[in-house]
Formats: sequence, structure tokens, C-alpha cells
Amino acid sequence: MTTIVLDAMGTDTYPDTDVRGAVMAAQEYDLDLILVGDEKRIRPLLESLSQKDLSIRIVHAPEMLTMDDKGDDLVRMARHKDAQNSMAIGMDLVKNGEADAFVSAGNTGAAMVTALFRLGRLKGINRPALAPTFPTETGSCLVLDIGANPDCKPRNLVDFAIMGSVYAEKFYGRTKPKIGLVSNGEEAGKGSSLVRETYPLLEETDINFIGNVEGKGVICGEVDVAVTDGFTGNVMLKTSEAIAKLVTGKIKEAVLNGNILTKIGGLLLKPALKGVRSALNPSDVGAVPLLGVKELVFIGHGSSDASAIKNAIRAAKEAVEADVLTSLREAVEKK
Amino acid sequence: MTTIVLDAMGTDTYPDTDVRGAVMAAQEYDLDLILVGDEKRIRPLLESLSQKDLSIRIVHAPEMLTMDDKGDDLVRMARHKDAQNSMAIGMDLVKNGEADAFVSAGNTGAAMVTALFRLGRLKGINRPALAPTFPTETGSCLVLDIGANPDCKPRNLVDFAIMGSVYAEKFYGRTKPKIGLVSNGEEAGKGSSLVRETYPLLEETDINFIGNVEGKGVICGEVDVAVTDGFTGNVMLKTSEAIAKLVTGKIKEAVLNGNILTKIGGLLLKPALKGVRSALNPSDVGAVPLLGVKELVFIGHGSSDASAIKNAIRAAKEAVEADVLTSLREAVEKK
Repeated sequence: MTTIVLDAMGTDTYPDTDVRGAVMAAQEYDLDLILVGDEKRIRPLLESLSQKDLSIRIVHAPEMLTMDDKGDDLVRMARHKDAQNSMAIGMDLVKNGEADAFVSAGNTGAAMVTALFRLGRLKGINRPALAPTFPTETGSCLVLDIGANPDCKPRNLVDFAIMGSVYAEKFYGRTKPKIGLVSNGEEAGKGSSLVRETYPLLEETDINFIGNVEGKGVICGEVDVAVTDGFTGNVMLKTSEAIAKLVTGKIKEAVLNGNILTKIGGLLLKPALKGVRSALNPSDVGAVPLLGVKELVFIGHGSSDASAIKNAIRAAKEAVEADVLTSLREAVEKK
Repeated sequence: MTTIVLDAMGTDTYPDTDVRGAVMAAQEYDLDLILVGDEKRIRPLLESLSQKDLSIRIVHAPEMLTMDDKGDDLVRMARHKDAQNSMAIGMDLVKNGEADAFVSAGNTGAAMVTALFRLGRLKGINRPALAPTFPTETGSCLVLDIGANPDCKPRNLVDFAIMGSVYAEKFYGRTKPKIGLVSNGEEAGKGSSLVRETYPLLEETDINFIGNVEGKGVICGEVDVAVTDGFTGNVMLKTSEAIAKLVTGKIKEAVLNGNILTKIGGLLLKPALKGVRSALNPSDVGAVPLLGVKELVFIGHGSSDASAIKNAIRAAKEAVEADVLTSLREAVEKK
């Protein structure tokens, strides 16, 4: 049976939302769950929510990492053998073989640093990457990196491309996933010096590299995986989320300020608009995989609701069951 | 009287759309227009559209630059004293004082290269930049560069910031425009090495630098001017345009696939949605200024319609009348 560890102290409304999401996941999917965090707060919550037959156990963690944890202090905590925070204890459970994957909606930087120092990197990987999906005209596109590495070298982008290809194939079931290199023009030769140096290296790999892809091409669905440095990826992600919100917000505003017919139209269209928002909402994906560390780690938004937590747990379970980690390890070792 | 030169061979549907846009502008605004291009094609079109009292004259250009013109050949044509293409002849009219600004919806790269070699750069400016506006929650934000310079040095970004500040103040009437440096996190110290090196230089200028801004912050309206390298800016722009189109497309799809009530809702909401699309549409802005060359140059989308051309001409006229160029020159000379 697949066992997923959830950091119960992750969301902005911890542990309530995290525990609710865990209960939803345990009710819906066939898996074992371990909740890591403040047992005094988690247990009563769990007992009030959960029927007896759910397979959820609690592992106590007296401390937690917050948005204030950063820099050298964070690294020190991540390296500390007896670290008592929920991320460290949770990841140790995976490392020691008691669980198969770790999920947290806590501080992304803290989760990355803890994973890097506690779990270590896959052999051959210098920089792990965060790989969310973007909504596209044809479905979705994996984009990596989106923030773990603001400065990248060509070799890092090649690693991202290989890991992204494996993930798109194993997790999303894409056959020979199309890999694009994000650039400011489609032609070979276009791009920053990083892109121009990376292009020929990608041509030498045995992944399905189709060349440069523009921001527009990513959203139009031209590729399954878009490879970029963490700086560009992060700006792409944050801008995209904000633009989607801007457009839906402007529509809402137009309805509110409109005449009676516009208002009726808005009312009639409400269910359809809700569907659109949900299709574009990151909460449906639930969490973003951190690719390149030795275990499966998924990091969600701090603003996740219980349903997003449930989806994050489902994503982790699916990644375990598709044995993504073995494929990743094999792909990066043979490169 | 302000005189604007329009490259009549610019849009994908040249010269029809270009000439139509020129006639609309001449009817609506108080200005003189010069159309540069194939006189045999332009004159009958103009005569069929225009009343006699419009101040539009034609300057014949036997050649034109297309999307196929690039690289060294393009540079050679841009430098050629007797170049016969519409961009070169049009820009020469501005350079020689016969007109005040140049507008084209042709090949962006060709227009930039022609401007660079025919008009030259402002003293103190190493890299001119393209500066479009993005729609934001509170109005709009100038973003530069968005493609002219995929690789930038910190000094280039400082120049962009100074030029953007002047443009936002003189053209958009913002008082002490807020300048942000696009990054993957708001805190000082976050960002690529380029961003981290640029930050302290921006603090030394006398513009209103407010620090790093994320993609989300740009769209939320936190700054009047967002400064970034042309690679990141281009990816931001193309991704944003595609995401806005994706969202409105998904809504249209939901209406088409919806039940009868959804369809009625869509019908009632149509005028409001059209308003939203138009607020987010680059055609309302018309064209993007190329800042840092010695004359005023505006470059529009090849897909511009006549109304976008009209708006591009209006933007050029307003920039002339606000004497943006003198302010730009003074600002970059004193830095």
C-alpha cells in the first residue's frame, strides 16, 4: 500500500485545512497517510472528522518551519540530525522507507532546502527543479524550473529537460513528450546566451527536443514540457496567474457595473465561469513536484484549500504508483 | 503642426489597413501625415477613402522590408545611404526634420535595426528598448525591454529604468512614476545575478525605484514601470497575451458547449465581454515606442487593424506634443 506523509503544519490555515484535506484523500483513495505536526492540535481535529476505518496515523513534530525561516538558519535546521520540525521529521520518514512520498503546503524555500540537505540530490543532478503545470489550449504543459534556481547553466537546463521528459511520460502519460526551450523567438539562434548555449546540448540528448518555444507557444500547447531557468519560469508563472485573475476579475466587474441584462447574463453564466476558473486553477493540480532529489516531494500553495491538499496527496500517490522516481534515477544516471 | 510618417507597407494586410488607419487618424486628429510606400498602390486607395481636406501626402518607396529580412543583410540595408525601402525612407524624413515621428506595423526586428543604424542612439544609451504597456488591476504598466536585448548588463537595465520613468511621466502623466525591477521575489537580494547587480545601481539613481517586483506585482499595478531584460520581458508579454486569450477562449467554449440558459447568458454578456477584451487588447495602445534612439519611433503588431494603426498614430502625435524626446535626451545625458 502506498504511504504518503503530509506536513500537517503547511497551509496558511494549518492544521485544519491540511487535516481536512488528508481525511478527504483517505476517504477517496486507497492509501495510508501519515500526518506530521503538533499532535495535540491534530488528534482532536482528526477524531472529529474521521471515521475509524481511515488509515491515517499521526507522527508528532514539536516544531514547524514558517515563512520567517530562511538563509543560513534554514540550512542549519535542514542539516540538523535531530531537527524537530514537521518538514524534517516528515522527510525522514520517507528517507527511512516508512513512507513513499512527502507533501507540504508550507514555505516552498524551506521545503526545498530541507529536501536538498535531508534527502540529497539524485546522482548526476546538480540542481533540483520545481515543475508545475501551466494550463494550455490543449490541456497542460509542465514548466521547469519556476523558482528553485534563478541563475542556471546550460547543463542545469539539460537536466531539467531530461527530468521533465520523464515526468511528462510517466506521470502524465504523454508518449515521446515534446520538449521546448523557452525563448524570445522560435528560430534556433534566438534567445539569451544561456538559451543559445543550451540549444545544441539539447539536440544531443535522446529526448524529443523540438527547439525553442515562445511564451505564446507554451500556452498554445506546442510542447509537453517547457524548459527554462528558475528566474524566467517564476516570472512566467506569477504573471500568468495574475493575468488569468485580472481577466476574470474584469469580467466580474463588467457584470457588476452592467445594466440589468448584463447582470442576468452574468447570473446565467456563473456555473460556466466557475468551470473555467476551476480549469485554470492551480488548486486542481494540488502541488508541484520537486524533481531531482532522491525521494518524491510535492510542494503546494500556502493558500491551498482542503480540496487542493487532497489533490496534492493524489498527485503524490500517482507518482509513487507510476514509479516516477526509478525512471528519473535511470534517466539522469545514463545521461 | 505635428507631422507623423506612417510606413504604409507595415501590416500583414498592407497597404489597405495602413492607409485606412491613416485616413481615420487624419479625420479624427489635428495632424499632418506622410504615407511612405508603393505610390501606385497607395494613391488609388487613399483617393477612394479620403476627402480632399485631409492633410495626407505620399512619399514613394519602391521597396519594402519583410519578415524575411534579417541578420547581416538587414544591417547592410539599414546602413545603405540610398536604401529604397519604406522604413529607411520614412525614418530619413524624420531624421531630416520633415516629420516628427515614425510609425510602422512592419517587421519589429527590421524597424529596430533600421532605427539603430539610420537614426542612431541617444548619447549615453547603449541599448534602445521596446516599451509596451501591460494591462493591470489599476490601469497599465510600462514594461521594458520586451525583446530588443535578450542579454543585458546592469547598466542597460538602469538606462531602461531612467527612460521608462521619463516616458511614464511625460507620456502617461504619472507623477514620480514607481519603478520596479522584475524579479522572482520582492526582497532585496532575490533574483538572478543580473537583478542582484542592478538593484544597488538603481538605488543610486534619482528615479523613484521601489525595489523588486514579481510578475504578480506588475499585473496587480504595484509599479508604473517594470524593468527587465528583453528575454524575460518578451516571455512575460507573449505568455500574458496568450493567457488572456486562453481565458476568454475557454469562456467562449463554455458558452458554446453550455445549455440554453448558459447560451442566453453568453448572449446577454457579449457587450460586456467585448469591453473587457478591448481593455486588454494591445490594439488600443496601437504601437510600442522604441526608446533610446534619436527620434521617436513606434512599432505596431503586423496583425494591427485600421483602428490600431489610428491609435499608433495618435500615440506618436501625443509623444511629439509632450516633447518626450527632449526629456529622454536630458535624462540620459545627465545620468
